[in-house]
Amino acid sequence: MDLGTVIGLIWAILVFIIAIILGGAGFGAYVDIPSVFIVFGGLLGVTLVKWPIDTTLSMFKAVLKAIFFKAQDYSSTIDQMIQLAEKARRESIFALEKAEISDPFIKKACNLAADNRPPEVIDSILQMDVESMDERHKNILTILDGIAEDAPAMGMIGTLVGLVAMLQNLSDPSAIGPGMAVAILTTFYGALIANIIAVPIKKKLEVRSNEEKKNVVIVITAVLGIVAGENPRLIREKLESFLPPTERKKEEETEEVPKKV
Amino acid sequence: MDLGTVIGLIWAILVFIIAIILGGAGFGAYVDIPSVFIVFGGLLGVTLVKWPIDTTLSMFKAVLKAIFFKAQDYSSTIDQMIQLAEKARRESIFALEKAEISDPFIKKACNLAADNRPPEVIDSILQMDVESMDERHKNILTILDGIAEDAPAMGMIGTLVGLVAMLQNLSDPSAIGPGMAVAILTTFYGALIANIIAVPIKKKLEVRSNEEKKNVVIVITAVLGIVAGENPRLIREKLESFLPPTERKKEEETEEVPKKV
Amino acid sequence: MDLGTVIGLIWAILVFIIAIILGGAGFGAYVDIPSVFIVFGGLLGVTLVKWPIDTTLSMFKAVLKAIFFKAQDYSSTIDQMIQLAEKARRESIFALEKAEISDPFIKKACNLAADNRPPEVIDSILQMDVESMDERHKNILTILDGIAEDAPAMGMIGTLVGLVAMLQNLSDPSAIGPGMAVAILTTFYGALIANIIAVPIKKKLEVRSNEEKKNVVIVITAVLGIVAGENPRLIREKLESFLPPTERKKEEETEEVPKKV
Amino acid sequence: MDLGTVIGLIWAILVFIIAIILGGAGFGAYVDIPSVFIVFGGLLGVTLVKWPIDTTLSMFKAVLKAIFFKAQDYSSTIDQMIQLAEKARRESIFALEKAEISDPFIKKACNLAADNRPPEVIDSILQMDVESMDERHKNILTILDGIAEDAPAMGMIGTLVGLVAMLQNLSDPSAIGPGMAVAILTTFYGALIANIIAVPIKKKLEVRSNEEKKNVVIVITAVLGIVAGENPRLIREKLESFLPPTERKKEEETEEVPKKV
Amino acid sequence: MDLGTVIGLIWAILVFIIAIILGGAGFGAYVDIPSVFIVFGGLLGVTLVKWPIDTTLSMFKAVLKAIFFKAQDYSSTIDQMIQLAEKARRESIFALEKAEISDPFIKKACNLAADNRPPEVIDSILQMDVESMDERHKNILTILDGIAEDAPAMGMIGTLVGLVAMLQNLSDPSAIGPGMAVAILTTFYGALIANIIAVPIKKKLEVRSNEEKKNVVIVITAVLGIVAGENPRLIREKLESFLPPTERKKEEETEEVPKKV
Repeated sequence: MDLGTVIGLIWAILVFIIAIILGGAGFGAYVDIPSVFIVFGGLLGVTLVKWPIDTTLSMFKAVLKAIFFKAQDYSSTIDQMIQLAEKARRESIFALEKAEISDPFIKKACNLAADNRPPEVIDSILQMDVESMDERHKNILTILDGIAEDAPAMGMIGTLVGLVAMLQNLSDPSAIGPGMAVAILTTFYGALIANIIAVPIKKKLEVRSNEEKKNVVIVITAVLGIVAGENPRLIREKLESFLPPTERKKEEETEEVPKKV
Repeated sequence: MDLGTVIGLIWAILVFIIAIILGGAGFGAYVDIPSVFIVFGGLLGVTLVKWPIDTTLSMFKAVLKAIFFKAQDYSSTIDQMIQLAEKARRESIFALEKAEISDPFIKKACNLAADNRPPEVIDSILQMDVESMDERHKNILTILDGIAEDAPAMGMIGTLVGLVAMLQNLSDPSAIGPGMAVAILTTFYGALIANIIAVPIKKKLEVRSNEEKKNVVIVITAVLGIVAGENPRLIREKLESFLPPTERKKEEETEEVPKKV
Repeated sequence: MDLGTVIGLIWAILVFIIAIILGGAGFGAYVDIPSVFIVFGGLLGVTLVKWPIDTTLSMFKAVLKAIFFKAQDYSSTIDQMIQLAEKARRESIFALEKAEISDPFIKKACNLAADNRPPEVIDSILQMDVESMDERHKNILTILDGIAEDAPAMGMIGTLVGLVAMLQNLSDPSAIGPGMAVAILTTFYGALIANIIAVPIKKKLEVRSNEEKKNVVIVITAVLGIVAGENPRLIREKLESFLPPTERKKEEETEEVPKKV
Repeated sequence: MDLGTVIGLIWAILVFIIAIILGGAGFGAYVDIPSVFIVFGGLLGVTLVKWPIDTTLSMFKAVLKAIFFKAQDYSSTIDQMIQLAEKARRESIFALEKAEISDPFIKKACNLAADNRPPEVIDSILQMDVESMDERHKNILTILDGIAEDAPAMGMIGTLVGLVAMLQNLSDPSAIGPGMAVAILTTFYGALIANIIAVPIKKKLEVRSNEEKKNVVIVITAVLGIVAGENPRLIREKLESFLPPTERKKEEETEEVPKKV
Repeated sequence: MDLGTVIGLIWAILVFIIAIILGGAGFGAYVDIPSVFIVFGGLLGVTLVKWPIDTTLSMFKAVLKAIFFKAQDYSSTIDQMIQLAEKARRESIFALEKAEISDPFIKKACNLAADNRPPEVIDSILQMDVESMDERHKNILTILDGIAEDAPAMGMIGTLVGLVAMLQNLSDPSAIGPGMAVAILTTFYGALIANIIAVPIKKKLEVRSNEEKKNVVIVITAVLGIVAGENPRLIREKLESFLPPTERKKEEETEEVPKKV
């Protein structure tokens, strides 16, 4: 579970709840069902026009995944691939088929290797998976971009609707304030959705997408090394070039152990 | 018919109608013929200056097409091209001329193949069609971009016109509210046109344009394969590389049937 | 004469005149000489700082040309070049010098061909003309971009000047409305200049510039073909590749006539 | 002296002085020392954080230079270089050292030529000067860009400071107007600095920078020609390719005189 | 210590303190704990969602470093590298290991050289350090960019919260002013954080990052020269090509001393 995202989101929402309580007008002054309906309803309509429904639903899944799960650590991916490389060395490349692997992409890569397919075929098949993953990620980021732009727009349109209603009724001065307050609420909701939800989560998904892509490149590099029958130590060296130097050092130390042998 | 676009548009408009009814000022408060005239009239004038009339009209046709029709499914395009490839194999390439084809682009591609033209000529002739399609799409997207920018501008100018009129007449306090309300309406219309109509439909047309382009590339690849006398199974494999892996799998199964033969 | 631009401009201005009349405050409420002076005067000063005077004047000429003249039709340019190619074939290349040509660029190209200059020289001399045309167009578009940004800025500064004056005089309540109305007028003028004049005409000039560039490329291709002594039919085929397929078809039919001979 | 910039600036400032006088609130209403202090003081602080002091000072020098001096005319640069080429031909390349040259870059180029250094060395030494000139210009343009963005921001912050002060004192209604007027003044100053000073002068400096760069390229081309012992007429032809065709023509006529000899 | 940044920041903050005192509403009118809480709390939450905590903390370290330390002077880096080159020449390349070097990057580079590793290995190892430094810098700049965008957004949301609270309580006219004033404070804080802190410090970090990168390139070039056994004078000449010509000249003079020997 990615604590940063969860704590950050809860904290940001808490901040505004506390701010509202401190404001002294009561929590009820900030909840207006028609205003909620305008912003979320309008947002839903516009998103339906822009994107097929299944793309939109996959966006929600990706958002939940980004909130609750961290991407696999690069060095643990490397460790797993080195173990598989050693297994393939000790037993045979066909042993990869029976290895217990939870990650579906690594599983697929191992099966292709165990099928004894030529390296170019393995590479091109896995590469196509990477491309379709990339396109899926890009679509999701574009939807969140759209929400970050549309939510304030829907909020503004809602405020215009409320303002016109209020301006028609200036005869009762005591109604002006609350009328105006309600009109402003849609702008408030739109700003919250865009700046507290859509923009930060989009940024986090971008970070996640880059991590996933790097993991996948590590797996492909490793499998091609295994198929070429390379030494697991050589494979580890190659894979470590994907790590930042600080994380690499401790590996270098363990690397020097075999040197002494 | 593309249900997503139609439902999304109807839903978005419904949301604002309900919002207006809930607002309590009555539907009439949001309809002002001069305001409608300013926003749509100004938009029309500006679009006429920017673009030739026929380009603007073709934009409307494209919008209607995007709303009511879906692009052809890639896999059905592939199936159709494979049937034609098998027909050309079984009978002869000249049989393509008599094949019943509704899509004008596939028809043209088949006629060129049946005319026994050299592959480079077929490719360059079809490629030029693709380029002119691309330019046509780009023009339409630019017009919608222009509307998304001009509609709020026209709305703002209309509001300035209304504000000046209202400010000249401050002697009657009861007229201030409705005067201001009317002034705001042009901004409201401009925001609706831009955010509910122009921006989402532009996005959908972009999606459509990419789908159409992919379909056309599939057709060209298939026809060049047919002309080169390639095996329909080989052609299918090539064409499937355009599909995402998830949609490809079921094809792989059917593909294994001939293997057993 | 380019009817689209003229009708569009007149229509857009008419829309706002009608809107003002419908507003009921009278036309006079929208005309304020000091406000006109601020927006146009400030715009003039800023443009003088940014650009040399002759570049600014050439921008006005280009705008008038874009409003009142259409670019030459590609197919009529092609027809003219083919006639010249046939003339050069029938008589001799030196006959081009005496051909009656109104377009100065085609005239220059023909004279260079009649001077019997080597093709590389003709190409490089004409290419430099194209480049300087391109730079001239780019400068003009940048000036219009500047006006589209500066006009609203000048309008806003004018409104700030007016607001300060009005706020100093709050003692007379009946003067507040008209004072505010006048302050808003500079914003109104700035928005009109930017959105009704500068932005749409810039867009149209862009379209025109692309058309002119294409015409010039057609002429250069044709003249190089003539100098190389190519068959007029071959030259026509080359030139038609610049046309969209729809406009090309009718040419294809006439092209088949000589085949039967 | 560059009349366009000076007249444009004076005119733009005059426009707003006249506008203020016509506004009727008196010139004093627009001068508020604390407001001037906020906008200029804040701008100074922010610029000090962003840039080293010497870069900022060199920006002021560049601005003054752009206002009061025009870049050297290309054709006069060409004439000067041709005279030097002829001098080098008549006497010897070492004579360039004693030639009276005011421009330090041409002086340096001539000294390098007279030192009999190899052409590659001359080119690389002068090229490095061009690069450092380019970087200097880019820094100056970025500073002006920063001012164009920071001035309105400082104005807005100043207005917020003024608004809070005014809103705390609503008990005296007669103070609201002037308080508000003063609060608006910082926004007014910020808009003036950005739109009347920073943006137009940045644009002019860009134009100047391109002219200077072209001049420098002409000088380098000429000196390399002189060092290679090329005929002055050939050098002139090369240099003229940097001129627009309209300015080149008259040179072509004078060029034909030696032909007759 | 980088005086420019420190003085600029202190000065900018001082300007607004003086402005507040001159405003006459007293310093207390600008401090509102709930408003501070909303802007900083919201900013913290959003930043936690967007970025891992350690990246955010490293941003604060980088900001403090940028404020209090200057990057090393290029010419002193060059001097240091030349001394090391001369030491390697006089004694041997293995002497570099024992040289006293405070900069960790130069230390690492020297150790690699003293280890007698092949030049390609040294280059690729150091290059990877450069890349990871680059990515670290880019992340920090992106976080500051995010703060510059989020601070005004949080300010606006806070103002909306305050406005709704105020509008609900219009019955007491004397509370309107202060309520509005408090509502505006969050916008004020957001604008201060973005325009006085985040944007200028981001710009300064960009300048610093470019300086550090240039220093690192100088070190790598020098070490590769040392490993290749090049003459220290040749190395100096190479390194000086990274300096602007003005700073290079004095080196050129010292360079001519050995010529006379």
